[in-house]
Amino acid sequence: MTKNKQDNKGLTVKKNENFSEWYSQIIEKAELVEIRTGMKGFIVIRPWGTQTIEKMYEFYEEELQKNKHKPVIMPTLIPESNLKKESSHVQGFTPEVFWLKTKTDEEKLALRPTSETLFTPMFKLWIRSHRDLPMKLYQRCQVFRLDTKATRPLIRGREFHWIEAHDAFATKAEAEAQVQEDIRMTEDIMHQKFCVPSLPLKRPEWDKFAGAEYTIGSDSLMPDGKLIQQPSTHLMGQKFSKAFDAKFKNEKGQEEYLWTTAYGPAMSRILVSIISLHGDDTGLVIPFCLAPTQIVIVPIYKKENQEKIMKYAEEIKNKLKEFRVEIDDRDAYNPGWKFNEWELKGVPFRIEIGEKEMKNKEITLFHRDTKNKETLPVGKLNNIKEYSEDFDKRLKNQADKFFKSRLTNCKTKGELKEAMNNGKIARVEFCSTKSEGLPCAEIIEKEVNADVRGTLANKKETPKGKCIICNKKANEIVYIGRSY
Amino acid sequence: MTKNKQDNKGLTVKKNENFSEWYSQIIEKAELVEIRTGMKGFIVIRPWGTQTIEKMYEFYEEELQKNKHKPVIMPTLIPESNLKKESSHVQGFTPEVFWLKTKTDEEKLALRPTSETLFTPMFKLWIRSHRDLPMKLYQRCQVFRLDTKATRPLIRGREFHWIEAHDAFATKAEAEAQVQEDIRMTEDIMHQKFCVPSLPLKRPEWDKFAGAEYTIGSDSLMPDGKLIQQPSTHLMGQKFSKAFDAKFKNEKGQEEYLWTTAYGPAMSRILVSIISLHGDDTGLVIPFCLAPTQIVIVPIYKKENQEKIMKYAEEIKNKLKEFRVEIDDRDAYNPGWKFNEWELKGVPFRIEIGEKEMKNKEITLFHRDTKNKETLPVGKLNNIKEYSEDFDKRLKNQADKFFKSRLTNCKTKGELKEAMNNGKIARVEFCSTKSEGLPCAEIIEKEVNADVRGTLANKKETPKGKCIICNKKANEIVYIGRSY
Repeated sequence: MTKNKQDNKGLTVKKNENFSEWYSQIIEKAELVEIRTGMKGFIVIRPWGTQTIEKMYEFYEEELQKNKHKPVIMPTLIPESNLKKESSHVQGFTPEVFWLKTKTDEEKLALRPTSETLFTPMFKLWIRSHRDLPMKLYQRCQVFRLDTKATRPLIRGREFHWIEAHDAFATKAEAEAQVQEDIRMTEDIMHQKFCVPSLPLKRPEWDKFAGAEYTIGSDSLMPDGKLIQQPSTHLMGQKFSKAFDAKFKNEKGQEEYLWTTAYGPAMSRILVSIISLHGDDTGLVIPFCLAPTQIVIVPIYKKENQEKIMKYAEEIKNKLKEFRVEIDDRDAYNPGWKFNEWELKGVPFRIEIGEKEMKNKEITLFHRDTKNKETLPVGKLNNIKEYSEDFDKRLKNQADKFFKSRLTNCKTKGELKEAMNNGKIARVEFCSTKSEGLPCAEIIEKEVNADVRGTLANKKETPKGKCIICNKKANEIVYIGRSY
Repeated sequence: MTKNKQDNKGLTVKKNENFSEWYSQIIEKAELVEIRTGMKGFIVIRPWGTQTIEKMYEFYEEELQKNKHKPVIMPTLIPESNLKKESSHVQGFTPEVFWLKTKTDEEKLALRPTSETLFTPMFKLWIRSHRDLPMKLYQRCQVFRLDTKATRPLIRGREFHWIEAHDAFATKAEAEAQVQEDIRMTEDIMHQKFCVPSLPLKRPEWDKFAGAEYTIGSDSLMPDGKLIQQPSTHLMGQKFSKAFDAKFKNEKGQEEYLWTTAYGPAMSRILVSIISLHGDDTGLVIPFCLAPTQIVIVPIYKKENQEKIMKYAEEIKNKLKEFRVEIDDRDAYNPGWKFNEWELKGVPFRIEIGEKEMKNKEITLFHRDTKNKETLPVGKLNNIKEYSEDFDKRLKNQADKFFKSRLTNCKTKGELKEAMNNGKIARVEFCSTKSEGLPCAEIIEKEVNADVRGTLANKKETPKGKCIICNKKANEIVYIGRSY
């Protein structure tokens, strides 16, 4: 009945040797997702993945609510007439929209690709005067995009799971302050809690969200040296409010158009960075604050001492009530098999309990990231609180170190090429991220196979020299990378 | 600047005089939902409604997890070939399905109307042996049904928000035990927490879920005397596992088909009963355990004492940290307007704080359901814990009393007609809920305009006489009512 190590389904490839294959294996073998749904770009998120994502949602929703956002539930569908109201929005999204079959006398309906055109008409209905402002709303939901490119689980799919916050203000200054608050949320949650560093980059004019005045995308770096866009925030300005005629009465009783913003952290995509940055050749390493099971207790027993050992395991569990603890008491698997399984799934701490530990009133504690084992007297179980904080700190430090090591200044196209081939993010003096800079960006795309991702959005950086491509005066410092 | 009472948008109709209009007004005026989406059967759930529903989800998810269910996230779409696998399922649901426009060379995709045909293929992939059983999963999600009848917000829509739990077992006995656990969850959560009583009724053969061996629907009663189906649970038996060839190896190494069940509590629909049963002519009355704001503090001040009163309000709030408390400090509205607004929204307790309360170190406490006001010394704020429990007990007792008062035994068709006209649930001796009883049920439908809803599912009731319609031996005691 007992399964042995051979049955276990560990990773057969190393992360730094073949990242792409490592990623494909880990998401399947750690039981995060199931791709066999028979539908391109649609996956199942399995319990281990769902529980992790639920914790991510909790952190984000708590922060949004602290920042005075309230939750709503919008319809999953959007009438065609809504989608068509803002002209650059409809151009940007129409090719990506799933349409429903409707009767010829009924309006066409789309699966929402994003929900500006659901929120703005509600602002119009719900906001009368400045007294109703600001109105800060969010929904946790899924959105749908008919991507025709190759899909990859969690990275690029046709359905993804996110939060979208949509806010309305009386003035541009307040809306811009919200954009900065959104950037801080990405830092406070994705970086400080989930240990995923990123750069908030104001996208070039040609790369902004369809319908936005400007877009800030936070780029994180994957182990293969490619950037992945994480939460983005958009100053919509008055574009959508004008398209939907959404006004408010100011203090003088005059009508003005609303100023709106949108912020979109995608849990399923942030999970990609968590998996990829923290995982190792043995499996996942999940930040302590997110792990569905934070501590697994594996009792090691024979028939003759099973009862006593199990009782001791329960005692230990009872002392760890502030954490998410599981006792793995499955008789069908031996301890070695269990060790492998929980390492693959990235549980931060394993407690081993056998005859020796029971006799000495101690535990053996295994740290998933460092793979260190130590003996801890029961009296010192309180240490685990501190250990858990250290655990997340180590993940963050390691991710930060990797990110910083990949940031480099480039002064020539040659340097830029080399940097890109080495999986780096290049910091480069550049003519302009307004439309006049597009030709230079196109040269970079064509000759270096890389993208101008934008300028730092939370800090002013001043160039001193010339554009790396056209040699004209550089007006900006931009960040360049290859990307997903 | 200050709005006065006239601006307030109270209910203009009494619940017991025109329930239908009362319902339409309350869901709009208490800002639970917004129906102006331009799409039939698709509504927005506004923050007050969403926050309430979120609490409902929390109670249900906690209970499901306690009962060893794990969360998953399934795709929103289903391939046509999945939907078609189980023949009675496809017949039951096909007319109600929203289809997507797909290219001619791609498989047709449907918006999920329910997810048996997503879960069962996963059971097939994920379950190998009896060691993997039971597998108990759930997802919180929305489902879509192309209802062609008149839609009513939250009651009957084309999109609704629910949990669906899908479980797989090795034996029929375990599956049937799960069905009973599901009935208990409805009792423990919907009745004990949300104060909504219901009867778990095993539906007649002709009224079961498309694809089930049998269905148990819990019927609650609306103030207008019509039944509304609340959570239902289904013994699927081996119907779906056979259709999808989903097997497991038993302890002897032999392959057997899985036994599956499904349970579907719909938050948006349970909210209908909460609104309707507990609400009154002033507005909503939300159970304390569900209220987004459990206690609202309304400070009553003039310019000269504003600062001191606000400080006192903060002190009171700090003493109530275990509850969800809000201070309504909006200068633009006067206290009377605020009182009306929070009564309309159903906040269980209001604390009024003015000069007198501050001087005497007391508060004025308003109980939303009884509309009693009392003065409470600050030292007795601890009482609120007990008051909150009493509050929910009162709602439950009142709802139970109403429900019981509407249950009546009927011995003749005449009595049955009268009972139906008085908005009652009739308890009736009946020939059979198997297919041979259908003609009698059809007579009841045609002549009494009422439905045979089924037999009690958690208690055996034995008839002694004859069928109320055909006069043959009664084999069952059934419950009959008009319904939504």
